[in-house]
Amino acid sequence: MSELRKDPIIDRWVIIAAERGRRPTDYHSPRPTPGGVACPLCVGNERMTPSEIWAVRPGGSAPNGPGWQVRVVPNKYPALRVEGSAERRGLGNFDLMDGIGAHEIIIESPDHDWRMADGPPEAIAQVLLAWQLRLSDLYRDERLRYCVIFRNHGAEAGATLSHPHSQIMAIPVVPQRVKDKLQAAREYFERKERCIFCDVLNQELALGERVVIDNGRFVAFAPFASRFPFELAIYPKQHAHDFASIDEPGRLALAEVLQQCLLHLRPALGWPAYNFILNVSPNRVPRPGKPHFWSTLQFDYHWHIEILPRVTHIAGFEWGTGFYINPVSPEEAARFLRDEIARPAGEEGEVSGRDG
Amino acid sequence: MSELRKDPIIDRWVIIAAERGRRPTDYHSPRPTPGGVACPLCVGNERMTPSEIWAVRPGGSAPNGPGWQVRVVPNKYPALRVEGSAERRGLGNFDLMDGIGAHEIIIESPDHDWRMADGPPEAIAQVLLAWQLRLSDLYRDERLRYCVIFRNHGAEAGATLSHPHSQIMAIPVVPQRVKDKLQAAREYFERKERCIFCDVLNQELALGERVVIDNGRFVAFAPFASRFPFELAIYPKQHAHDFASIDEPGRLALAEVLQQCLLHLRPALGWPAYNFILNVSPNRVPRPGKPHFWSTLQFDYHWHIEILPRVTHIAGFEWGTGFYINPVSPEEAARFLRDEIARPAGEEGEVSGRDG
Repeated sequence: MSELRKDPIIDRWVIIAAERGRRPTDYHSPRPTPGGVACPLCVGNERMTPSEIWAVRPGGSAPNGPGWQVRVVPNKYPALRVEGSAERRGLGNFDLMDGIGAHEIIIESPDHDWRMADGPPEAIAQVLLAWQLRLSDLYRDERLRYCVIFRNHGAEAGATLSHPHSQIMAIPVVPQRVKDKLQAAREYFERKERCIFCDVLNQELALGERVVIDNGRFVAFAPFASRFPFELAIYPKQHAHDFASIDEPGRLALAEVLQQCLLHLRPALGWPAYNFILNVSPNRVPRPGKPHFWSTLQFDYHWHIEILPRVTHIAGFEWGTGFYINPVSPEEAARFLRDEIARPAGEEGEVSGRDG
Repeated sequence: MSELRKDPIIDRWVIIAAERGRRPTDYHSPRPTPGGVACPLCVGNERMTPSEIWAVRPGGSAPNGPGWQVRVVPNKYPALRVEGSAERRGLGNFDLMDGIGAHEIIIESPDHDWRMADGPPEAIAQVLLAWQLRLSDLYRDERLRYCVIFRNHGAEAGATLSHPHSQIMAIPVVPQRVKDKLQAAREYFERKERCIFCDVLNQELALGERVVIDNGRFVAFAPFASRFPFELAIYPKQHAHDFASIDEPGRLALAEVLQQCLLHLRPALGWPAYNFILNVSPNRVPRPGKPHFWSTLQFDYHWHIEILPRVTHIAGFEWGTGFYINPVSPEEAARFLRDEIARPAGEEGEVSGRDG
């Protein structure tokens, strides 16, 4: 079983998950994508994954065979498992706990070469529905305090399989990084009785220079303090703390914005590797002694998406300070993307030869 | 001039430093190491760098020509410059300031192919002396609140030049990541009247299983909550908050531990890319309204080094949560490195063919 360990000085957890069959010296270089091996996520290879948890099967086909459009399976090599105890233990100064949680794969298409940037929005909306349903289901387990949904696209972004997929991980603690956001949002709300995310978004909309797309329900913009070239954020335009409650027109509207963002990163950066993170509210479990801790969440927290293209390296300065150096201003990035989106279809800006 | 911008929600700063002559779309892939171009850090090419700030010139040779062993120069493309104001400005919700600071390169050897892992300790000790002198000098400027000293080794770790060098960056704010450590250390000290770093180190020494080297003055160990395979920490064994005050025997002792760590990562991981971070105390500038804020630093803060091999990728889960997944337990990593160090010279463990 994997183990969650907390840094003895700051509030940072790590998952120590020794992979079976690998020796400590099997890390001579970043793990390559398997080549020449059957893709376990492809249609026809359903037996290569653990049994499916959920799938879109329009023709009513049987589970664990072909006929699906989106398919959710447990990760075959999960970093966390549902079995175990959520009790924290001490070891002198140190804190640890069992590596409980969940780790699932959302296979986004039966087609190995499909890309979210290709759409159509209807196909992406089915992926969003899978995220919603899995999130709601995992939050039924009160031990699971936080879920993160993410996509790693490209080897530089940590993807080990190139088949289009996203992942959901449920963990037994609310990470400090998330607590920092929640705390800042709560303090702002207590002072102003307004959501800080709404205020940031309204300011971006008023200034306009960093806004990339606004389709009425969702806004994509290059954040004021972007860490990476062409970093993007997507916020629902109306205050919303609950990702799982978006309706079908909302899913389609979000799918449209997502597709546009990913599609227009192509002329900007080629097909860049990127990490995509959906930041949702934590599980609102009443806790002994702090029954109201999450009670204002519906007013002060606002779910949001981050898209982080991976074209610059994280180096010593970033590790040492948590500061980032970004060589492209978000105003420039947003202007470029707006121009691309406005360009008539068929014409493309500066496209590189890379079509990976 | 570059600009420091603060995230409007959490306390995270970025440096927006648009590089002259580069367009926003010049980031199709991670920046390659220039090939076939004269190395600006090599002996004989001193005119390719800005004027030197400090150098070890045993024969008394003239500045900016050959004859040096270690040479410190300003970064030709600095992310931060000394000119500008340390005043913070507002822009609606947003906080920004001029990108003031300093960014210097410590050229560690005239030899392009020297590696710190090759030693000898005397050569490394000269690099440590350069770090000490530059740190003390930069902290004379009260606008510079924090210095970070780091080495990026290998392209995966963000190195753009392969000539052995380290960097020092001085910044006008204490980063939140550092404040979190300082705060935790202070709170611990207030409760126990002991340094938290000393207590962690003593516990590691008592348990022994994660200790790699202890040469009496310095201890290298694999931290309990290591984020990466073969992550290492080096602490001075006696409480010490001031890196700049190590004496010559101390520099030699630290050089020895450093060399041993880097040398023995080779059989473990090949010549891995790594980030090396020296975490020093912030500049103890009295501030209006909080004159005593840093007053306990000499008791509660303990400088330390982190070595982060870059053999796994940072992906969506890490970005979304600040959690890390580490597939090699620190106990296994430490055991492997201890065995390597104990092995008679000439015999090597599982060495790969990679000798980059």
